Amino acid sequence: MRVLARDVAAAAGENPGAEVQVSGWVHRIRDMGGITFVVLRDRSGILQLVFNEKPVDSSGAALTLESVISARGVPALNGKAPGGVELRVSALEVTGRAAPELPYQVNADISRLGLETILDNRILSLRSPKIRSIFNVQAAIVEAFSAYLRSRDFTEIKTSKLVWGGTEGGTELFEVEYFDRKVCLAQSPQFYKEVMVASGMERVFEVAPAYRAEKHDTPRHLNEYVSLDVEMGFIESEKDLMELEKGLLCHVFEELNRGNGADLARWNASVPDADAVAASPVIGYEEAVKLASELSGRAGGGRIFDLNPEAERFLCEWSKKEHASDLVFVNEFPRRYRPFYTYPSDANRTMSFDALFRGLEISTGGRRQHSYEAFVDALPRFGLKLENMRNYAALLQYGCPPHGGFAIGLERLTARILGLANVKEASLFPRDRKRVAP
Amino acid sequence: MRVLARDVAAAAGENPGAEVQVSGWVHRIRDMGGITFVVLRDRSGILQLVFNEKPVDSSGAALTLESVISARGVPALNGKAPGGVELRVSALEVTGRAAPELPYQVNADISRLGLETILDNRILSLRSPKIRSIFNVQAAIVEAFSAYLRSRDFTEIKTSKLVWGGTEGGTELFEVEYFDRKVCLAQSPQFYKEVMVASGMERVFEVAPAYRAEKHDTPRHLNEYVSLDVEMGFIESEKDLMELEKGLLCHVFEELNRGNGADLARWNASVPDADAVAASPVIGYEEAVKLASELSGRAGGGRIFDLNPEAERFLCEWSKKEHASDLVFVNEFPRRYRPFYTYPSDANRTMSFDALFRGLEISTGGRRQHSYEAFVDALPRFGLKLENMRNYAALLQYGCPPHGGFAIGLERLTARILGLANVKEASLFPRDRKRVAP
Repeated sequence: MRVLARDVAAAAGENPGAEVQVSGWVHRIRDMGGITFVVLRDRSGILQLVFNEKPVDSSGAALTLESVISARGVPALNGKAPGGVELRVSALEVTGRAAPELPYQVNADISRLGLETILDNRILSLRSPKIRSIFNVQAAIVEAFSAYLRSRDFTEIKTSKLVWGGTEGGTELFEVEYFDRKVCLAQSPQFYKEVMVASGMERVFEVAPAYRAEKHDTPRHLNEYVSLDVEMGFIESEKDLMELEKGLLCHVFEELNRGNGADLARWNASVPDADAVAASPVIGYEEAVKLASELSGRAGGGRIFDLNPEAERFLCEWSKKEHASDLVFVNEFPRRYRPFYTYPSDANRTMSFDALFRGLEISTGGRRQHSYEAFVDALPRFGLKLENMRNYAALLQYGCPPHGGFAIGLERLTARILGLANVKEASLFPRDRKRVAP
Repeated sequence: MRVLARDVAAAAGENPGAEVQVSGWVHRIRDMGGITFVVLRDRSGILQLVFNEKPVDSSGAALTLESVISARGVPALNGKAPGGVELRVSALEVTGRAAPELPYQVNADISRLGLETILDNRILSLRSPKIRSIFNVQAAIVEAFSAYLRSRDFTEIKTSKLVWGGTEGGTELFEVEYFDRKVCLAQSPQFYKEVMVASGMERVFEVAPAYRAEKHDTPRHLNEYVSLDVEMGFIESEKDLMELEKGLLCHVFEELNRGNGADLARWNASVPDADAVAASPVIGYEEAVKLASELSGRAGGGRIFDLNPEAERFLCEWSKKEHASDLVFVNEFPRRYRPFYTYPSDANRTMSFDALFRGLEISTGGRRQHSYEAFVDALPRFGLKLENMRNYAALLQYGCPPHGGFAIGLERLTARILGLANVKEASLFPRDRKRVAP
C-alpha cells in the first residue's frame, strides 16, 4: 500500500519501525560515497530516501533523474530532511526509467528558463512544482466559479463549439472542414447561453474552450482559451451583472486563500480580500478614457483615445491608489465598440462593461437586446441582414426575458492572480500562430 | 423583488394579503369569459394567474403564449390551482412579447413530436420542462463526477482541442484551417491526460468536447460530444480503474436520487442503487462474445462475432437477469481492437475494458503502456513510425509511471439513465452530418 510523501511522518508515528512504500519521481540524487540521498517527488510533495548502497535498477543500471520508482523502507526522523523525516530504503523498484539525458534539468531554478523553452518542453516543465501550481490554482478557480453559481440556482450547460458561422460577420474565425461544408469554431457560447436563458433555465454557466483566429502574438492573447461564461435572465441593467461578478470573484479569491495557500506562496502571490473587491469602483467609458489620458500625461505619456492596454494599466493603478482595489469596472461602452446584441442605454451608449484586474481586462459583459423589434431596427447600423440572422431572430421572437451575462478568461484571471508575465504560461498546452504542439 | 413560482405560497404565508411580483413565460391561457386564467412558467415551476379583465400589453394587444411577463398581485389559496395557490393579478407588464404564431405549441404533449422537430426547433423545444429536465440531469452528472474525483485528489485540467493530428493515424478527424496549416479537432484528451499524470499531477480529470468525424448516423453517435475523462498513475491493472468507475457511477446515481428526483420522475426513470453497482459483473472479451452468441441463438438470432451493439444489449440483459445489475464490464480486449498505447496483458490481450450500461457502451478505458522500449517495439504492429510519434515518445522517455484511465460519454450516460431512444436528445445542440444549427 503506497503512502504519499506528505503522509510518511504520520504513518511512522502510527506504526513506529514498520516499513512503508512510497512511489514517485527521482527529483535529486546526491552520492555521498558510502551513502546516497535521493529526493523523491510525488503529487503531495517531496521525501528524502537514504540508500546504504548505490541505487540501481534490476539490470544494475544506475538510477537516473526523473525516473519513476517505488521504494520500501523504514521512516526515520531527521531534522535536516525536508519535512523532518526520511526513508531508509530496503527495496527499490524502477517502474519507469528516464533517459539519462534530459532536454533540461527539471530540478533547476526555472526562473532562468525562457517561455519558449518552458512551452516547447511542456512534458518536462510541468514537472516543476512551481509551474504545476499554476494549474492547481486554475482548477480551484473553475471549482469555485462553478460552486458559487450553482449555489445561486445557475445550471451548467455544454454547448456546441461548431457553429454555422457568420452571424456576427466576424473575421477572426477558424474554419473547420465539416463533411461537405465548412463550419466555424465558436468564438463564444453567446447565442447558446442566451437560448438557454430564454428556454426557461434563466440562469446558466459554461466552462469550455473558445477560439479567436487573431494573428497577433501578445502576452495577453491566446488563439484557444477557456471561457468562464455566465448568463442570467430578469436583470435590470449591467449593474446586476457587475454585482454578480464581484460576488463571484470574491468567492474565487476566498477559496484560493482557503485551499491554495501553498500554490499562491510559490508565486509570492496574494488575492484581494472581500473588502477590496466590494470597494471596486465603476467608471463610465468616456470618463475612464479621460482619466487614463490624464494619468498618462502626468506619467509623461501622451493622450489616450480608447480603452487600450495602456489605459487598462493606468485605470488599475488608479483604482489601487484611490480605492485600494485591484479591480475596476468600466461600463457604458459606446455602441460602436460593442456587438449588435448589446442593449443600448441611450442613442450612443450601452449597458455593457469590462472588468479590469491588476492591469488587464479579464472579463466582458453586458445586458443583451431582448426585443425583436429593437434588434431588427439596429441591424443596418451593424451592416447585418435579417435573412442571415434567422436563428438569432427566433431567439427573440418567441418570448425572451431581459437578460445579460459576462465571460471571464480563465487563463487571464489565473495569470493576473499569480503575476505571470504572459497569459500563455497559464495555458497547459497553449496555441498561437506558430505553436500547435505538444 | 421577484418571487419564484415555487415560493409564492410561502411568501403568502409569511405576509398574508401582501402583493408579490412574479416573472416568467405564458404557458397557457384560458379565457373563461369574465375571468382569464394564465399559467405562468418560470425556472422553478408553474403558477396560476387570475385576471378579472382580459390581459393585454401596454399597447392593448392580447397576451400571446410564450410571451415573457411580470405580474403583481395578491396570492390566494385555491385547492384547484397547481401548487394550491394562485395570484390575483393587479398589474401586468409584458417584457418580451412572443409572436402570435409559434412553430409548434410548447404546452402540448411532446411525446408526439418527432426528434427532427425537437432538434430543428431547439429554441422552443427546450421550453418543455420535460425536455429541459434532461439537461438538469446532465448538469448534475457533471457536478457529481467532478466532486467525486476532487474528493479523491484528482485535479481538473483543460487541454487543447486543436491537435497536430495524425499520431494515431486516425481517419475520423475533422480538419481545421489554422493560419497557414491544418490541424485537427481532438478525438480525446488521451495524450494530454497522460502527460499530466507523468508530470506529477498523477490524477486528473477533464470535462470537454471531443470530436469524431464518423459519417454514419445512428441513435448511438454524435460527431461532437462531451467526454468525461479520467486518468491516474500508479495503478496495477484495469481492475483499479473499473473499481474507480464503479465508485464514481455510484456517486453520480446517489446524487441524482438526492437532487434530481423530479427530473427522473418526468422520464419515469430510476437509477441503480449502490448494491446493484457493486454487483456489476466483469467478463473477459472472448467469454463475452461467446455468451452474447449463445444468448442470441437462444433468442432466435444468429452467431455474434464481436462486441457489436447487439452483443452489448444481450450482455446487459444477462447482467440484469443473473446479477441484478444494469452495468457490466467487459475486459481483456484483443490487442487488434485497441490503440497502440494500450497495455498488453499477454501476447494477444490487453488490460482494457468497456463499461456497458442498460444496453449501451458508455465508457472505454484501460491501463496504458508506460515503457518506452515496449512502445517502440509495438509500433510496427500498428503500422506506426517512431518519427511521427516524437511527442508520445517524449512522454514515455522521461520517466512515466504505470497508469491508465477511462472516458465516459456524457450524452450516452444521460440517455441511458433517462431511457432516451437517441443520444442526440441528450445533447443541447447536437451535431451530425446534416445538422450544424442551431
